[in-house]
Amino acid sequence: MATTSANPVLIRSDKLILGGGAALCVLAGVARYGGWSSVLAFIVSAAAVCVLASLVGRSVEQLGDRFGPGATGVLQSALGNLPELFICIFSLKAGLVDVVRAALVGSILANLLLVLGLAFLVGGLRHGTQQLGSERARTIVTLMVLSVTAMAVPSIAHEVHSPAGAHETAFSVIVSIVLLVLFGLSLPFSLRRDETSTDVVSTEAPRWPVWLAIAMLTVAGLLAAFVSDWFVHALEPAMRTLSISNAFAGLVIVAIAGNAIENVVGVQLAARGQSEYAFSLILNSPIQIALVLAPVLVLASQIFGLASLTLVFGPMLVVALVLSVLLTAVIATDGESTWLEGATLIALYAVIATSFWWG
Amino acid sequence: MATTSANPVLIRSDKLILGGGAALCVLAGVARYGGWSSVLAFIVSAAAVCVLASLVGRSVEQLGDRFGPGATGVLQSALGNLPELFICIFSLKAGLVDVVRAALVGSILANLLLVLGLAFLVGGLRHGTQQLGSERARTIVTLMVLSVTAMAVPSIAHEVHSPAGAHETAFSVIVSIVLLVLFGLSLPFSLRRDETSTDVVSTEAPRWPVWLAIAMLTVAGLLAAFVSDWFVHALEPAMRTLSISNAFAGLVIVAIAGNAIENVVGVQLAARGQSEYAFSLILNSPIQIALVLAPVLVLASQIFGLASLTLVFGPMLVVALVLSVLLTAVIATDGESTWLEGATLIALYAVIATSFWWG
Amino acid sequence: MATTSANPVLIRSDKLILGGGAALCVLAGVARYGGWSSVLAFIVSAAAVCVLASLVGRSVEQLGDRFGPGATGVLQSALGNLPELFICIFSLKAGLVDVVRAALVGSILANLLLVLGLAFLVGGLRHGTQQLGSERARTIVTLMVLSVTAMAVPSIAHEVHSPAGAHETAFSVIVSIVLLVLFGLSLPFSLRRDETSTDVVSTEAPRWPVWLAIAMLTVAGLLAAFVSDWFVHALEPAMRTLSISNAFAGLVIVAIAGNAIENVVGVQLAARGQSEYAFSLILNSPIQIALVLAPVLVLASQIFGLASLTLVFGPMLVVALVLSVLLTAVIATDGESTWLEGATLIALYAVIATSFWWG
Repeated sequence: MATTSANPVLIRSDKLILGGGAALCVLAGVARYGGWSSVLAFIVSAAAVCVLASLVGRSVEQLGDRFGPGATGVLQSALGNLPELFICIFSLKAGLVDVVRAALVGSILANLLLVLGLAFLVGGLRHGTQQLGSERARTIVTLMVLSVTAMAVPSIAHEVHSPAGAHETAFSVIVSIVLLVLFGLSLPFSLRRDETSTDVVSTEAPRWPVWLAIAMLTVAGLLAAFVSDWFVHALEPAMRTLSISNAFAGLVIVAIAGNAIENVVGVQLAARGQSEYAFSLILNSPIQIALVLAPVLVLASQIFGLASLTLVFGPMLVVALVLSVLLTAVIATDGESTWLEGATLIALYAVIATSFWWG
Repeated sequence: MATTSANPVLIRSDKLILGGGAALCVLAGVARYGGWSSVLAFIVSAAAVCVLASLVGRSVEQLGDRFGPGATGVLQSALGNLPELFICIFSLKAGLVDVVRAALVGSILANLLLVLGLAFLVGGLRHGTQQLGSERARTIVTLMVLSVTAMAVPSIAHEVHSPAGAHETAFSVIVSIVLLVLFGLSLPFSLRRDETSTDVVSTEAPRWPVWLAIAMLTVAGLLAAFVSDWFVHALEPAMRTLSISNAFAGLVIVAIAGNAIENVVGVQLAARGQSEYAFSLILNSPIQIALVLAPVLVLASQIFGLASLTLVFGPMLVVALVLSVLLTAVIATDGESTWLEGATLIALYAVIATSFWWG
Repeated sequence: MATTSANPVLIRSDKLILGGGAALCVLAGVARYGGWSSVLAFIVSAAAVCVLASLVGRSVEQLGDRFGPGATGVLQSALGNLPELFICIFSLKAGLVDVVRAALVGSILANLLLVLGLAFLVGGLRHGTQQLGSERARTIVTLMVLSVTAMAVPSIAHEVHSPAGAHETAFSVIVSIVLLVLFGLSLPFSLRRDETSTDVVSTEAPRWPVWLAIAMLTVAGLLAAFVSDWFVHALEPAMRTLSISNAFAGLVIVAIAGNAIENVVGVQLAARGQSEYAFSLILNSPIQIALVLAPVLVLASQIFGLASLTLVFGPMLVVALVLSVLLTAVIATDGESTWLEGATLIALYAVIATSFWWG
């Protein structure tokens, strides 16, 4: 009974998302070709990207429901970062290598500091001290720490003027392949993970017919490709108008827009008191970026002759990355979270983001 | 009965402190204006600062007892670092920016490595393996790690030649304000902390009348201001006579003198087997330095036109700081302490302090 | 009954080791003076070093059995790294300082990343998630983190251009003495450790007569000295022939050859499901290197006028070292290990080793 009464609300929310998404995509197209001011075009296309990201995520979830929880895991891993991937590829095509570098690191920082901080803050204020200590959560922390560190090694080699620094591209390609192999190895673990996690979610989600899910995924994916292009097109002039540096734009704006949906879901879960699940979800995103998004972009940039992207990030990006990863590990082994820890994480994010304000 | 019989002893100890403090202050004044050798003047005024610090702490505790444990927390946070604050302000007035920088970092290092090491060593030798694992202790560790890291971000930005490094003062002021906001947010947590901790202490402390506590606080505070001035005045010539570099003087001598009382109390608590309470007390000091003392000094140095202090510490100071913080977090999540861990911490402090010996 | 039937097998394995060792030593000698190709001479002498290392370890174990578990600990600490010590001393005599530096750091990295990773992988695949959480294991982690960090301080001081960097030799000698004092202090703890650990091992080992153990130790030790000399003699031409850089040779090849036996034993223990014991054994090796091998080599190089070895390692070596140590601490406080964590550790080792490929 409870589930039946919940259905109409959710269907209405689906309709709202669909309608809003269609409207935003049209607006973004008009903004792109209608000579709107770049700042307005940027805002509209950013919003459209967020809604499309949400639609892709929703369709994947529905499809996965049909083929079992294992398939959801694989699909989510493969398609969850689709909009981010499009944005980064179009940015590379536009030569905005700095933006992509900053966005990759920024996504990880935003997840580990800002989103985790918000989740701790909201969860802590509503439900008091929260537990994070399950075995699964700790394995995710370990994987996150190790994979992000592996991704950071080429930057470190470059920064300390190691001889490997002179072979930046070759070294980055090798590391990318190692990371993708690790991703392949981690799939069985991810599949097993989603078995438990979908239990929590699926109860409240009404089922779409398979054709609808596939159609929605195709349409949302295609639209995401177009809108990402418009988003990137508006990005640079908008940042120039607002006098925002490329580094800050990538680190903060692109990073937050590209992960908007995952971020909102993570905080919502924490608000509902599901701190363990929120924690896993939020930490899973950096793993995806280090093991899939970054290596795929590096390989794609070399194979398709885009602006050459290596895994050599700027020194401040790398230090911020390594520190955040280690701090998250410390906080996670603590086994609990309070709202004050959340506030401190947000403050640390603010401080680091500020350091990129001056371009 | 037990408390009545304890009273005279404690009153006698109070009298001893008062008498000794008065004598030392007079001596320090004579040394300052009587043309004593700078080394002697330095030693006498350092001793006087320690006793006055102890008196300020004692008066705050007594006052807090009247207004409830919450007030004690606020008062301790506000006034506990008073003598250190005076020393740093007079040092800034005297242009000894290097000393202040080294002293801020040195206080944190001394707490995390030397004092914690001594507490582990003494506690471990007397009582075997000790437990540290309470929820409260772990929250303090997390707060300490995050706040000290936030304080270190401007130094890191400067060290890696990030563009923010060129806006040293503006960035330091922003970070200082963020740290002070965090301090405000942490007050409720601190208040709650002292509720439990004063239970342990207050039972053995006899009560002073309110007027006595306020008078004592005022007198000790005023005297601390004068004696700190004399201490700083003797510092530089004394260090020159002893061929000790400014960095070493700040990092080791000023840092240990300024925190002498807290340090002794922490080790005493560990010797008595109260390892949990000792651990919290020792780790609380770096939080105070990062969230109050450092930002207040930065803002004061800008507002009152003293020698400009920013949060950009030297590279060796920053690396030592970040490493010590991460190591303490690792040791704390271990959940236990042994005398051998204590000895290793002390050895690490010795190694780091030695690295500052060559100015 | 079970032990009696096990005896002949083990005696046969002893005979095999003895016969193989003798043959390899003869071959290595022929290779050295018979004008063999340097690559072949290198491979034969590397194999001979491994077998001799195993014989030294075996004799020490047998001897220790006679004098009680305490003596085993002291003997193992003193003699366990004998072949590595010989290799490093002959390398210093040959002026191969870079190789020795890389080999010291490489041994620690190989233990913390490669061997630990293999142990997690093998143990995890055979026995599922494994526990590491005993008090003893956590104390070993803490000691390892602190001693390796202390060993890294001179490098850090040098890297950040601290004034102490200009006093490289003096500072390294002081740190070496501090490390050796720590080693002395840690002996009681090590003795107590072996009490428990020998329980596990001794049951399957048949007893040698005391004279045999002493004779074997003497012969194996002497031979190790000769073969190490031949190994070092062949090392540089072989690396030149194979176009392998000195840094890579030290970090990977010498490091793995010098620790081959400990490494195999650690992984075997994990395969048998004794994850706790494997973990302690593997982490003990970095402690030995930081507290004994490195300081002894530094002091020996100064006293006996070999090529001057200080504790200043290259920047990439130091960053890799500090990161690996912190990561191991994070993984250990996790309290469990899975095969995927093992695979990730191995991947991280591969990435770091690759960064040294370009000399």
